[in-house]
Amino acid sequence: MKLAVSGKGGVGKTTFSALLIRTLDEMGKRVLAIDADPDANLAAALGIENADKIVPISEMKEMIYERTEAQPGSIGGFFKLNPKVDDLPEALSAKLNNIKMMRLGGVKKGGSGCICPESTLLRALITHIVLARDEVVIMDMEAGIEHLGRATARAVDKLIVVVEPGRRSIETAEHIQHLAGEIGLNRLAVVGNKIRNDADVRFLQENLPQFDFIGWLPYDEALIDADLKGVSPFSTVSIAKDRVREMIGRL
Amino acid sequence: MKLAVSGKGGVGKTTFSALLIRTLDEMGKRVLAIDADPDANLAAALGIENADKIVPISEMKEMIYERTEAQPGSIGGFFKLNPKVDDLPEALSAKLNNIKMMRLGGVKKGGSGCICPESTLLRALITHIVLARDEVVIMDMEAGIEHLGRATARAVDKLIVVVEPGRRSIETAEHIQHLAGEIGLNRLAVVGNKIRNDADVRFLQENLPQFDFIGWLPYDEALIDADLKGVSPFSTVSIAKDRVREMIGRL
Repeated sequence: MKLAVSGKGGVGKTTFSALLIRTLDEMGKRVLAIDADPDANLAAALGIENADKIVPISEMKEMIYERTEAQPGSIGGFFKLNPKVDDLPEALSAKLNNIKMMRLGGVKKGGSGCICPESTLLRALITHIVLARDEVVIMDMEAGIEHLGRATARAVDKLIVVVEPGRRSIETAEHIQHLAGEIGLNRLAVVGNKIRNDADVRFLQENLPQFDFIGWLPYDEALIDADLKGVSPFSTVSIAKDRVREMIGRL
Repeated sequence: MKLAVSGKGGVGKTTFSALLIRTLDEMGKRVLAIDADPDANLAAALGIENADKIVPISEMKEMIYERTEAQPGSIGGFFKLNPKVDDLPEALSAKLNNIKMMRLGGVKKGGSGCICPESTLLRALITHIVLARDEVVIMDMEAGIEHLGRATARAVDKLIVVVEPGRRSIETAEHIQHLAGEIGLNRLAVVGNKIRNDADVRFLQENLPQFDFIGWLPYDEALIDADLKGVSPFSTVSIAKDRVREMIGRL
């Protein structure tokens, strides 16, 4: 199973991803977890020790230059578009129980005239992971799906968009749906997070009528406080954990 | 006065920026508001009508190609690094009272080997606005300061970092401080948002001891509900408005 998680910054993508990954691990699955959001810290949310010391792959300049044969410091120039990456998941992941976790780090956004060794290597890595790895793969992504293309999109079983009661989160969900559609990825599911009351549920359902909601997570101060204490949300007593387990049944 | 606002996605940067801009406007200032966060919608938060119809400048491809003399579709190639931009604030801003607002849109992140006509034009525009415009300028930025360089940093009176009780927001604040220091921008101020209780204040103060807090905004469901109704936070009855006015006095 390959799942990608996206949504606006701050909606709780990483909290949800961490609960999903730890629950799958608890269910006996081997999980390859990909932190593809430079503004997040999936390792900390998973409860991996020394999470802040994990060097993002995009900052491993020597490895990137070696694999892509790019010339450091040159603008433009030539480099390999198919660097070797198949050994990287074993070599560069942090471990917890049956979870392997890789932190991708920040890369340049795509667009006209822009192509970089870092983004090329990360793209090759994602392609390898999605197409060739046989674990459950969970990717915690930015508010977009820039690491995915037509080929990888076909192998993603579900793109889960996390939303909260807020207009920006709705707009981002629609934008993600649009981007996903462009690469032929129509298997979207939505998780409503930070739900305070029935009005919040109705707001999200009414504003995202074209989406398939697979579950709801409460606005829960226990999750905020877990974060303040530096504890994984999986280590809290929260109804959110049961809800995530139910969602896995619906995937 | 030139102010830049940054912070992790979802902490309430745009809500704060909108309150700041509308309050300054109410105080009789002319304000040039810059929406430099592609994941935000400052126009909607300001209460500008048809906010969703404002085309971001980065998507005005014809204008960008005309001004930079870039060749559409080519990778690499040559284009002007100093496009004419001084007429753009008048020509391309939306208006509300004494507020002019420009939406920059998404651009490529900087880094080795990456330079694009879009980012070049936006950078030139920001440089012009910060160095040559005489209104109060408020820039709502992403979780970083990528549009700023050494020259523009000198003209920014304050970089305001919005934080919430949450570890990622702390890490982002420290990262922003680091990036700002690299371009000689040390005039930082912090606003604590979504404060539930004294413990939240203590958490932020203890984790950001090197920062100057200029004020605190409450976790306020009225602000969430205003957003759900599509209303500017400035149109709500919230203690946050008084707090922002006090902060302006401290800037």
